[in-house]
Amino acid sequence: MPINPTLVKEFESITGKEQVLTEPADLQCYSYDAAVLSPVMPALVVAPTTQEQLCKVVKLAYDNGLPITVRGSGTNLSGSTIPQGDGMVILTNRLNKILEINEEDLYAVVEPGVVTAQFAAAVTARGLFYPPDPGSQSVSTLGGNVAHNAGGLRGLKYGVTKDYIMGMEVVDYRGELIKTGSRTVKYVTGYNMAALMAASEGTLGVFSNIIIKLVPPPKASKAMLAEFDDVNKASEAVAGIISGHIVPCTLEFLDQNCIRYVEADTKAGLPVDAAAILLIEVDGGHPLLVEEDADKVMEVCRKCGSTNIRIAQNAEEKLKIWEARRNALPALARARPTTVLEDATVPRSQIPAMVAAVNAVAAKYSLEVGTFGHAGDGNLHPTILCDRRNKEEFARVEAAVDEIFDVALQLKGTLSGEHGIGKAKAKWMEKETNRATIEFNRNLRRALDPKLLFNAGNKFV
Amino acid sequence: MPINPTLVKEFESITGKEQVLTEPADLQCYSYDAAVLSPVMPALVVAPTTQEQLCKVVKLAYDNGLPITVRGSGTNLSGSTIPQGDGMVILTNRLNKILEINEEDLYAVVEPGVVTAQFAAAVTARGLFYPPDPGSQSVSTLGGNVAHNAGGLRGLKYGVTKDYIMGMEVVDYRGELIKTGSRTVKYVTGYNMAALMAASEGTLGVFSNIIIKLVPPPKASKAMLAEFDDVNKASEAVAGIISGHIVPCTLEFLDQNCIRYVEADTKAGLPVDAAAILLIEVDGGHPLLVEEDADKVMEVCRKCGSTNIRIAQNAEEKLKIWEARRNALPALARARPTTVLEDATVPRSQIPAMVAAVNAVAAKYSLEVGTFGHAGDGNLHPTILCDRRNKEEFARVEAAVDEIFDVALQLKGTLSGEHGIGKAKAKWMEKETNRATIEFNRNLRRALDPKLLFNAGNKFV
Repeated sequence: MPINPTLVKEFESITGKEQVLTEPADLQCYSYDAAVLSPVMPALVVAPTTQEQLCKVVKLAYDNGLPITVRGSGTNLSGSTIPQGDGMVILTNRLNKILEINEEDLYAVVEPGVVTAQFAAAVTARGLFYPPDPGSQSVSTLGGNVAHNAGGLRGLKYGVTKDYIMGMEVVDYRGELIKTGSRTVKYVTGYNMAALMAASEGTLGVFSNIIIKLVPPPKASKAMLAEFDDVNKASEAVAGIISGHIVPCTLEFLDQNCIRYVEADTKAGLPVDAAAILLIEVDGGHPLLVEEDADKVMEVCRKCGSTNIRIAQNAEEKLKIWEARRNALPALARARPTTVLEDATVPRSQIPAMVAAVNAVAAKYSLEVGTFGHAGDGNLHPTILCDRRNKEEFARVEAAVDEIFDVALQLKGTLSGEHGIGKAKAKWMEKETNRATIEFNRNLRRALDPKLLFNAGNKFV
Repeated sequence: MPINPTLVKEFESITGKEQVLTEPADLQCYSYDAAVLSPVMPALVVAPTTQEQLCKVVKLAYDNGLPITVRGSGTNLSGSTIPQGDGMVILTNRLNKILEINEEDLYAVVEPGVVTAQFAAAVTARGLFYPPDPGSQSVSTLGGNVAHNAGGLRGLKYGVTKDYIMGMEVVDYRGELIKTGSRTVKYVTGYNMAALMAASEGTLGVFSNIIIKLVPPPKASKAMLAEFDDVNKASEAVAGIISGHIVPCTLEFLDQNCIRYVEADTKAGLPVDAAAILLIEVDGGHPLLVEEDADKVMEVCRKCGSTNIRIAQNAEEKLKIWEARRNALPALARARPTTVLEDATVPRSQIPAMVAAVNAVAAKYSLEVGTFGHAGDGNLHPTILCDRRNKEEFARVEAAVDEIFDVALQLKGTLSGEHGIGKAKAKWMEKETNRATIEFNRNLRRALDPKLLFNAGNKFV
């Protein structure tokens, strides 16, 4: 059903005509995101340029019963920014100002459409550090990062996006501005709404600005690559490092399949005959501390049977290691038409069991799987290479994913460490929690979105 | 109105007779907490001993429309555990088991009634570290700490209670068990309910157990005491340390009035002629790093005009410094009948302005104020020494508190850094936020507590 032209005019009168899209060719760009799900065409796309416009746009849409999907760059992997049919998309890409970087008090205030990597660079230029670095950081937005509580490679030591949210202003369903959190380190005034917005996937309101915590940068770091001839040895090394009380800033795992695809793609010099590699970086406030931590890491790796350990001798070599890791997903994605990237997460000590289970499931269903991910925080990304158009194969993929979730939950893990629930995983929510929990979540949601217009279909079914 | 005896019998049949108190002499003990507010007698007190009992008790109370106040040790300073008349108190002191300390995966699972310091000691005995250390830790419970998002002396570097909540089980108004969070480091399944419970002050449900994050302990630390002949110089040193990118684990401030009361009380050897002192501890993963940080801290202090710096030469001297600090409130409390302890918090760089404003307000209203607190995170505790029975004086106290809040908000601060809103500050909430925010918070609350039985009167008026 095409949207009422009078309503379109009203949106145009708020934002200006050029900020409202209704042409099918334009709308199509906003019909899908990075999830393996079918596209849905929105009825219109509006891109407010000020907080005032944003409030008015939300109010107008809500009053008229228009389903609202907020979209940053659409890099999420859970389908949470796939719009509803006949609904609208609110684009945040014009709300992209860094409003303040406060060096004395270690915080920044940003609009939601600021691109993550650009923000991180601006912060670095001021001598500070914003640690969260999701894989999509070069295009993803901070608003999207908050909405999905994006993780990244540094989660083990530095935490994830939610750990950097000090406060927010959120536009509620009435178009009113809600204030939560503060520029202060400690804050207990009102409910912890800012934290609730993390991973809310656009279902509770529309972010208007975000107060972000910054930290002093580490003064030294060291990156290394440890090879293993057995996947289990690599995952035991991960457990050994953590239980040895070393907290690397990054501790990544790639299995042989990943290594080979990445090497074919990047020629980074990865050991294609290794069964698995760990990419490890330690950092800290003093070069000696970093040196000692690196020595301990290498000792654990050797003890667990690492066949070879390389240390990045300079910044260039270090960059090469991390580029190789960041290329894991793109390299796998080029191998087959469809890449089903999973995100089940387990307590760190369960990594060996999880890796073994993923490989057993892949064998059972005759599927090709490459597993990589943030081993240090138990957040692996088993990635199934397949072709969605092949119905028989894709049925096997779906059965395999089900079993992977079951194993993660048996190991006291969770369905999603950082990718989100969105539309992709909503049906599994009850398996991890229980009926009462879903109802409790739903009650909360309905209270803050009585018409269920904010990203309905996400989070719970 | 006395409670219906049949209902009392039903509670007894759930928990056993000895876990239900109805005698006035018993009830009186639960009629007040650490806030300067009038006591209110509950109708009964029930102390469940198992999760199953807890669920049944909540359901029975809620179905019968009994107001519910959950109480750990009642050490909060905001009146949030003062019960409602004719209501019940659910005591958590028999839900006091540490269910698990997982050394490999760095987490623990506890019941809400576990005493903070006992938990911290149990964790230390296993070679790990639980940093939050609220002033009341020797008696406060972890459930109460979560409900108030308790801070403490280590907030600057290590964060506060909310930063250590990985997951929770919460009994909702139907007596159902809600699961949120996980034993995994990363988690984005469902709403971030565990974080929402932090600082919820018993208004959203009853905690049944808590999954707590643990960290490796620091390997070295160094404590020092810097004297200043001018309050402003001390507060400039605080700002200088932070903007110099040193993050001490503790950075505490005491003004002359506090120093004198504490010294009179403890004979710790504090410099009673100093205008202010800073108590500073740096810690870290390597003795050399700690040494360098301590040197930098001392350099900043000297540059800002510190007249004398003492370094604790051994564990005993260090203990003495921190005992003196922990004695600040008790020492002030002994000086006059009533101690009005405030908690307004500002961005760190605003500490000099805040200290100056507090002293100006005290002079204006002819009140005696001692200011101490967590200068490193902008969380000062200006403490007004007075006598509540003196109506004229107490009216001046209330006017002074109002002005202190106004200044904190003007300085982009917040009403409460760590003590909570409770009954004591509910009426100021709108000043910090706006009407829409209060309504948004209230909608959320009503969704999770439709009869408004959980700690009504707290948080918002």
